[in-house]
Amino acid sequence: MAVGKSVPRVDGAAKVTGKARFTDDYSLPGMRVAKYLRSTIAHGRVVRIDTGKARGLPGVDGVFTFEDIPKNVFATAGHPYALDPAYGDVADRLLLTDHIRYAGDEIAVVVAENELTANKALALIEVEYETYRPLVRMDDVLADDATEIHKKTNNIVKEHGFVAGGDWEQARDESDRLIDGVYETQVLQHCHLENHTAYAYMDDLEHIVIVSSTQIPHIVRRVVGQALGLPWSQIRVIKPYIGGGFGNKQDVILEPMVAFLTMQLGGIPIRLRLDREEGMIGTRVRHPFRVNVKVGAQEDGTVKLIDFDALSNTGAYASHGHSIAAAGSAKTHYMYPRAVYRCRARTIYGNFPAAGAMRGYGSPQMTFAVECAMEETARALGMDSVEFRLKNAARPGDRSQITQKPIMSCGLVDCIKKGKELIRWEQKRDDWPGEQTGPVRRGLGLACFSYGSGTYPVCVEAASARISLNQDGSIHLQVGATEIGQGSDTALAQMAAETLGVPFERVHVVSAQDTDVAPFDTGAYASRQTFVGGQAVMRTAQQLKEKILEYVGVINGMTPRDLDILNGDIVVARMPETAVMSLKDVAMDAYYDKNRGGQITAEVSYKTRNNAHVFGCTFVDLEVDIPMCKVNINEIYNVHDCGVVINPLTAAGQVHGGMAMGIGAALFEVLMIDPDSGRIYNNNMLDYKVPTIMDIPDLGAEFVETYEPSNPYGSKALGEPPVLTPAPAIRNAILDATGVAINELPLNPKVLFKHFRAAGLIE
Amino acid sequence: MAVGKSVPRVDGAAKVTGKARFTDDYSLPGMRVAKYLRSTIAHGRVVRIDTGKARGLPGVDGVFTFEDIPKNVFATAGHPYALDPAYGDVADRLLLTDHIRYAGDEIAVVVAENELTANKALALIEVEYETYRPLVRMDDVLADDATEIHKKTNNIVKEHGFVAGGDWEQARDESDRLIDGVYETQVLQHCHLENHTAYAYMDDLEHIVIVSSTQIPHIVRRVVGQALGLPWSQIRVIKPYIGGGFGNKQDVILEPMVAFLTMQLGGIPIRLRLDREEGMIGTRVRHPFRVNVKVGAQEDGTVKLIDFDALSNTGAYASHGHSIAAAGSAKTHYMYPRAVYRCRARTIYGNFPAAGAMRGYGSPQMTFAVECAMEETARALGMDSVEFRLKNAARPGDRSQITQKPIMSCGLVDCIKKGKELIRWEQKRDDWPGEQTGPVRRGLGLACFSYGSGTYPVCVEAASARISLNQDGSIHLQVGATEIGQGSDTALAQMAAETLGVPFERVHVVSAQDTDVAPFDTGAYASRQTFVGGQAVMRTAQQLKEKILEYVGVINGMTPRDLDILNGDIVVARMPETAVMSLKDVAMDAYYDKNRGGQITAEVSYKTRNNAHVFGCTFVDLEVDIPMCKVNINEIYNVHDCGVVINPLTAAGQVHGGMAMGIGAALFEVLMIDPDSGRIYNNNMLDYKVPTIMDIPDLGAEFVETYEPSNPYGSKALGEPPVLTPAPAIRNAILDATGVAINELPLNPKVLFKHFRAAGLIE
Repeated sequence: MAVGKSVPRVDGAAKVTGKARFTDDYSLPGMRVAKYLRSTIAHGRVVRIDTGKARGLPGVDGVFTFEDIPKNVFATAGHPYALDPAYGDVADRLLLTDHIRYAGDEIAVVVAENELTANKALALIEVEYETYRPLVRMDDVLADDATEIHKKTNNIVKEHGFVAGGDWEQARDESDRLIDGVYETQVLQHCHLENHTAYAYMDDLEHIVIVSSTQIPHIVRRVVGQALGLPWSQIRVIKPYIGGGFGNKQDVILEPMVAFLTMQLGGIPIRLRLDREEGMIGTRVRHPFRVNVKVGAQEDGTVKLIDFDALSNTGAYASHGHSIAAAGSAKTHYMYPRAVYRCRARTIYGNFPAAGAMRGYGSPQMTFAVECAMEETARALGMDSVEFRLKNAARPGDRSQITQKPIMSCGLVDCIKKGKELIRWEQKRDDWPGEQTGPVRRGLGLACFSYGSGTYPVCVEAASARISLNQDGSIHLQVGATEIGQGSDTALAQMAAETLGVPFERVHVVSAQDTDVAPFDTGAYASRQTFVGGQAVMRTAQQLKEKILEYVGVINGMTPRDLDILNGDIVVARMPETAVMSLKDVAMDAYYDKNRGGQITAEVSYKTRNNAHVFGCTFVDLEVDIPMCKVNINEIYNVHDCGVVINPLTAAGQVHGGMAMGIGAALFEVLMIDPDSGRIYNNNMLDYKVPTIMDIPDLGAEFVETYEPSNPYGSKALGEPPVLTPAPAIRNAILDATGVAINELPLNPKVLFKHFRAAGLIE
Repeated sequence: MAVGKSVPRVDGAAKVTGKARFTDDYSLPGMRVAKYLRSTIAHGRVVRIDTGKARGLPGVDGVFTFEDIPKNVFATAGHPYALDPAYGDVADRLLLTDHIRYAGDEIAVVVAENELTANKALALIEVEYETYRPLVRMDDVLADDATEIHKKTNNIVKEHGFVAGGDWEQARDESDRLIDGVYETQVLQHCHLENHTAYAYMDDLEHIVIVSSTQIPHIVRRVVGQALGLPWSQIRVIKPYIGGGFGNKQDVILEPMVAFLTMQLGGIPIRLRLDREEGMIGTRVRHPFRVNVKVGAQEDGTVKLIDFDALSNTGAYASHGHSIAAAGSAKTHYMYPRAVYRCRARTIYGNFPAAGAMRGYGSPQMTFAVECAMEETARALGMDSVEFRLKNAARPGDRSQITQKPIMSCGLVDCIKKGKELIRWEQKRDDWPGEQTGPVRRGLGLACFSYGSGTYPVCVEAASARISLNQDGSIHLQVGATEIGQGSDTALAQMAAETLGVPFERVHVVSAQDTDVAPFDTGAYASRQTFVGGQAVMRTAQQLKEKILEYVGVINGMTPRDLDILNGDIVVARMPETAVMSLKDVAMDAYYDKNRGGQITAEVSYKTRNNAHVFGCTFVDLEVDIPMCKVNINEIYNVHDCGVVINPLTAAGQVHGGMAMGIGAALFEVLMIDPDSGRIYNNNMLDYKVPTIMDIPDLGAEFVETYEPSNPYGSKALGEPPVLTPAPAIRNAILDATGVAINELPLNPKVLFKHFRAAGLIE
């Protein structure tokens, strides 16, 4: 049995030995280099552009400006297509623009025989701007006299609001306390290892082939078709291995441009590759949020209401836009499902790089706000933070306040209890009596989260798989779901092995997706791969197994239902120790008998119509060096309820990665944008402080296994959740240690200094 | 309706604009060059080899000799695997050898950073040989004291014999005349435009990816697995567009070596590319035959028996070996199915490049022999050649003498009549009274052929297809069948369009095969693509249509059987003018409705258990310039019964190509091998005389359409047959013109001179 085992990653050896090939590891003879000309101002308009000198430079194949592009306005967000236009993404992009909306906006593009020539050509393009006042601060964006960043929007992308779970007024009236706080989160960049890169060429007069480092090949196909006004079937997208994405590759960024360029230049192969500095402004960032949270609670600790009022800034272009705030509020609500839940959220534009999807998709921001507010509430009530959470935490059988669907699996209470035990909460509470003094103080903190598994019912959740039986009795598994470093190929291979009854080692995953032949799946996002993809894999494996046993019946006359597959052998179902024949013998007969059989394959395309609730928490024990404004984490644990753990080894890896990312967001990372000029200060890996191995403590990844009945293997989402709670847990522990409640991120020395000085801890 | 129409080739625009990509149009960063060290002698043994200096040359990655290779003896012939070992190919190859069997045998291989370095390294390898007498002439090979080219073979690959269609002795007794002749055919080379080339790399520790110009990707996968002793599933073969093969790429030549080399060198990409000169000796050639034919006939022109005794020489290695003589005799026999048929055939080794598959696969040789003998018989009986053929030609309802299966479609008589009319046989017979004199004389000739469609029941005939419905209502067709320039993608796309009810333009064929994902099919050979592949395409298209109509029922509640698809729209079956919805609307619902549907795809793997008989003939009108020993063709017509013509335009193209190839074999081409040294004289395109457009007359391609019930579209083989009869028709016309019966090929000036002088026509 393969599910539940710590099998090594199917791509592990390939990746550590360098044999795995990424987009840039492919090339085509004669491939050209494309480079963007980016605006030097953050807000304004191009009033004159002269590309004459650039066009005349030897080695330049073409120069294109906003004047040369198709006028199809398109949306870049990596969502499945919505049949209902109300669910559609905001289309506010052209391939190039003369209306500058951030410092780095794409106004022209050069294609040349090499990078040096391309850069020379860029330098020869003359541009004159008309400049407007950059709008970066939320209040500036919303000022009455603010210039519209996008016409007829009032700078607002979208807003929504609702009340769920009961009557808000009544809940407020039943609350003894109403805790009120405002929490702000910063702009972050994903900093995946592999930068964005894509190349395209034409292999006939109509079809465009795009090879891209993307999480969402089938969506790229659609968006490129829309951007260029072509039938989608004329676009072919190939996704090799990719070196991380974290949501930044759940957006269609370079592909429409390379497709356009190859069409313009006779189908020659053209590559567009962003280096780190360009990528950090030219791709996507995390939306900064400002959230006003109210928590209404009774003296006994019962939370009666949770109220959000969130403002999210999507930057220069909508990209995922308001979906971030909407998803963030929706996925957070059933953590405390017995409270009335009110949400108002608004997403605005701003003159900085477009914000898009990033691991957690709005939930890190919302979770930071609610879990800070919950901590404040516990403190206001004089309750132990753990007991307060336990009292209100979701339990099996609770229902989502919004959908009224039951929470079928829920280990939140056990996660909190396990975290408390791991961190030795009670012992440490006894050891550190109340008020600490001195320069270094110790604190404990926790934060809880809830999350979803996929996007249903907001988006369609389709996944497909195809399995073929090889001559040697092994199987090839093709999935539309994309491996992006998270380990989904391994988990899906385990599932296929489990259902088929073949050893895990005999499952080979075709890891690259090619939209011309890959079964349809919308890609890697929303922590959906094993939950949604697993549904398709299970059904495909079952279908293959049925076909195999049926064919054994053709060979030897036995009844398929009397047969089973065990460890790669056909066995008698009631006497599984009796092997009838090997899978290899079945396969060889099917392939090569002259008068019967044929290749045995199976394919299923399946739509998941569930969205399992996932839960967990972070517990942290840390020290704050007040004069140094420095935080040192002693112990930190994430405890997850992700249903059945498909692979403990790779699950722990996911949790470790997410925790490190969460710690980065808590203590170090911020993309610094000058609020007056819109200029970005630190778009490089020296100044943007991604924590290194030296900055990260030992990470404790723990699980409380439940069984989720809406998934055939009992599992739920694990991809994004690990990132959600380190920041609020750390913030709460700093409050615990110092008494200073800091409601913004990151908690880096600069911010701590400001707050510690305001609190009188330092002068 | 798409079948029967002269639609343009699906790959036509891509190929004429240069956008189509062939193996050499792909590269990988860091790719290395491999080059063979080939023996300078034709027969012998390497007694010493020193690669030290070559290994020490900077830029050399590795040098491997016969000492370094795996000891798995394998067969290279591109046949499907045979479950019955009696049908297996002769395994007589290693990757490299110290036992030299032809001038050019592979004894070592160098891998270097570029071609120059590789060539330098080759020059630094020191080799000492022990030499044996080269055996090139058939009689030398069979001499009692001949050295064994392969141990324990007596230099015989295989032999067989049988009598079919009645009692041979009785048939002989009933014959008034027994005509006896010996006919010899030459060694030919395929001379496909694109030389052999392949590269390989590893994308993890186990899997080898091979990109190759091959007709048979799935067979390459198997043979590489066998050659290297690896599970077949660890091999992945990708076939891009290929520039012709004619059977020479129905052999596994370079792929095992590139796979071996990349395994040895850490998985780095390595390319092995043969240039023209190397390829003409290092790949395969056509088997030379010596055939003794006896024809027994009655005075009224009834042929009672046809008797072959054939000797075929496979050269240095078996490759397709005796299959060539076996297929050649089997596919020729039912041309005159009312005669008793006796065959004895033997295939021997010889010290020249290995002979393998080449368009016609033994039939050009056998057809030359029998159609020369038939001409002699007609002349001996004093009968008109046409009347004689018409009297004996196969007719519908005749049965194969060997299989006793009925000939279900047969247009041979009509083909002969049509050819006679086209060439104005009777008028010209009247115009040219009997004996001609003078230096330039005119002659008429004809020759008939029969052929098969695929290899059943000798080999398994499996084909598979997968079709997916795109969002825009178009379809993607994946086939295992390989487009090799012959136009199969176009014919199969027409079939899919026909069965599905969509316009041909909306069918996109995924032309490249990738064995990891392509539906299984053994490849392009034996004129099987449309006959065998069409079976799978038809069933897959039917399955897709059923699924689409079923899903329309899900959408609108209608009964699928009341619906149909017409011109890309869903219509009411009984009122086809009434469109219910477009395929695009069905597809969009299936892909994107949140609560129903899924990607609609279909896949079928099917084994054909028929082998349709095909027929046709060549008529030629030519002049012989006796002093110049030169033949000038005035008119030439091929008339084919290939069942229903799927695409008249591409069918005519096939016939034109085959006729040109047949004329080349008749008048110009021969790979000249020194019978004493085994050295090859003319392995280049200057000295090997492939006819150019200047050497080829206007070619008449005509069809007699029949309906073949064993194929759903009524079609039969057309790929190879056009090459079969130009040579005997031309030989018979020269006999007609000059009275000189020449029983060898080619009929080039040198040969004509010999025979004309012997006949006293020139001094």
